[in-house]
Amino acid sequence: MADWLAALDRRADLRAKAGLTRRLQPRPAADGMTDLAGNDYLGLATHPEVTAAATAALSAYGLGATGSRLVRGSTDAHEALETELAQWLGTDRALVFSSGYLANLGALRALVQPRTLLVSDAHNHASLIDGCRISGAETVVTPHADVDAVAAALAAAPGRPAVVVTESVFSVDGDLAPLTRLHAVARRHGALLLVDDAHALGVTGPAGAGGVAAAELAGEPDVVVTATLSKALGGAGGVVAGPAEFVRHLVETGRTFIFDTALPPAVAAGVHAALRLTRVGDDLRVELADRVALAVGRLRSAGLTVSAPDAAVISVTAPGPDAATAWAADCRDQGVAVGCFRPPSTPDSRSRLRLTVSAGVPRAAFERALEVIVDCAPVSARSEPGLRAPQSRTAVTQ
Amino acid sequence: MADWLAALDRRADLRAKAGLTRRLQPRPAADGMTDLAGNDYLGLATHPEVTAAATAALSAYGLGATGSRLVRGSTDAHEALETELAQWLGTDRALVFSSGYLANLGALRALVQPRTLLVSDAHNHASLIDGCRISGAETVVTPHADVDAVAAALAAAPGRPAVVVTESVFSVDGDLAPLTRLHAVARRHGALLLVDDAHALGVTGPAGAGGVAAAELAGEPDVVVTATLSKALGGAGGVVAGPAEFVRHLVETGRTFIFDTALPPAVAAGVHAALRLTRVGDDLRVELADRVALAVGRLRSAGLTVSAPDAAVISVTAPGPDAATAWAADCRDQGVAVGCFRPPSTPDSRSRLRLTVSAGVPRAAFERALEVIVDCAPVSARSEPGLRAPQSRTAVTQ
Repeated sequence: MADWLAALDRRADLRAKAGLTRRLQPRPAADGMTDLAGNDYLGLATHPEVTAAATAALSAYGLGATGSRLVRGSTDAHEALETELAQWLGTDRALVFSSGYLANLGALRALVQPRTLLVSDAHNHASLIDGCRISGAETVVTPHADVDAVAAALAAAPGRPAVVVTESVFSVDGDLAPLTRLHAVARRHGALLLVDDAHALGVTGPAGAGGVAAAELAGEPDVVVTATLSKALGGAGGVVAGPAEFVRHLVETGRTFIFDTALPPAVAAGVHAALRLTRVGDDLRVELADRVALAVGRLRSAGLTVSAPDAAVISVTAPGPDAATAWAADCRDQGVAVGCFRPPSTPDSRSRLRLTVSAGVPRAAFERALEVIVDCAPVSARSEPGLRAPQSRTAVTQ
Repeated sequence: MADWLAALDRRADLRAKAGLTRRLQPRPAADGMTDLAGNDYLGLATHPEVTAAATAALSAYGLGATGSRLVRGSTDAHEALETELAQWLGTDRALVFSSGYLANLGALRALVQPRTLLVSDAHNHASLIDGCRISGAETVVTPHADVDAVAAALAAAPGRPAVVVTESVFSVDGDLAPLTRLHAVARRHGALLLVDDAHALGVTGPAGAGGVAAAELAGEPDVVVTATLSKALGGAGGVVAGPAEFVRHLVETGRTFIFDTALPPAVAAGVHAALRLTRVGDDLRVELADRVALAVGRLRSAGLTVSAPDAAVISVTAPGPDAATAWAADCRDQGVAVGCFRPPSTPDSRSRLRLTVSAGVPRAAFERALEVIVDCAPVSARSEPGLRAPQSRTAVTQ
């Protein structure tokens, strides 16, 4: 019996030796850090209209929803949010879950019928991978953003129901999936397309409606959109949006919808306020795009290997897990929070700093943060020409 | 492609014909209903100290946590809550998840190693069932609360790692698992015991610390406790509590912990306030137990078939799904909200009203609600002697 704890200790030691220890680092409410690690892309989590809406709902409804959505958990606040989410995303209906993770688990299981084949991008988020797993369906993992591989997988399963599963903006490297081509291939084979739009919502597309809307696929009967409400929308929870028949199916049979306490009404109300601000937030998106371009230019000019971001996630290659950890720690010591992604959280087993750009950070602090990241970079991060993106080769300054 | 929507429609029609349609019924903030359906057992969701704590945290932290727990999502509010949860539950450490569903998925996967056998009670909640499934481990489902069957399953797998998986208070019928005997059997076979304490937390045990604490199993090195923070604690989120080595393992490897946006800090702060009230809430628990006894007595005296509740969940047998739906609707028309559980949400394929007793409902309204439930009962609900619990036979009045 004590064996299992000793075994866990041994595994922790192995992780420590590989530089893969992870520790919680709780932050105070005002920690004075310049945040290039969080996902509050538009700075709406602390917007006074958002917190005011949540505060008013706290007073009206109390803290928790007190039950699952089909029992006592559905409130006016949930319904209003769902109505506007559907309008914004251009779908028949939208359904709010208590987390984006549970939205993906629920959507994938609901899309699967007997003999369904799932075709899943190699860079997909853990919640999509777990959704494929929990659905019980056969899953083919295709190389990242490889439309030909998707087509081949579908062609190899003629007559079977199939779902192509992808993110729009991928969470680690920030690149955009070839949605238009994926949809064309899926449709040609009679397959459905599920797109996790978490990192695109609020950032790309008309009125910030995300990658699916940007690709003009919103409302297509063979497309299902999932997302979290915890990134640009500044709150928590998830959403599945798509055809009315599908959403009804989720309401009536979706286990992670039915058997889960509803999102707190105050969070739904706060997210709804953030959604209204997001829809009219083109100025924020212009500022965001400008900052992303600035960051990529500055980091590449310092010789760093930087992804080609399509939204507000930027990946900067680190020489290894220990170097990534030290780099992030040095930045933190200088007042800059950056993400540090190491295996097994990275799809290619490579370590990197993962920067998220937010329009909510004061501009001067953002510009200073870029200098901190450059100053703290390990020498070896600047000297791996083989790993550099082509664009950066001409911009190397040292 | 349009086929899939037509197929979903056909399945919806089949559900409708079987009386199994489910519809969202959003409620306004003050709907004037007497609530015997929610899980706010102590009435803390609307307690002024709870909403004040959440409001203060909203102002300090903003709405969302803005990131996952290992990136930017861990705040002082999460840490303080986890520290007091561990003290209360009597475990080394406690770890907060964004939902109880995700806590169960995370805990089960983390408990599984190669060749692990999971032994799962037939009445376990969907999140435990999905946790078993997502873990990939072989799972044996044993008859409900059958310790001998658990022992036999363990004996049939000598030398293999094993985990016995159970709720403490079961969510549908409100009965308490034989935790002491389950633990003895598990220990005899070198197996671990995972207990979902969701419906016991705040309601049973010393200072409301739940079923595991009541059975004096808190802190045992072979016991892991999971729960939601959305029932007696009035908020949202989940918790896994147990040995320090196990919680560290979850922090470093738990996918539903690592790859999920953290619980909003305001929710963590509100739940923490509710936890403090819960620990000193023996008066609320006395009132709750009194109401449960009152309800069981009154409903049985009307000839209804009522479960023998060990906490604050009461199950009342309905003749079938349509009758259950009509009964609940009639109660709702009279201003009383009750749960209506039908297949496939019931482990025995039987329909019932599911009542949850709350100390937060005004006493007079609660007593009136019992009369409404009796008045609205279908005649056939009172005339199935074969289904009645033994205790009710002597109390039948018609």
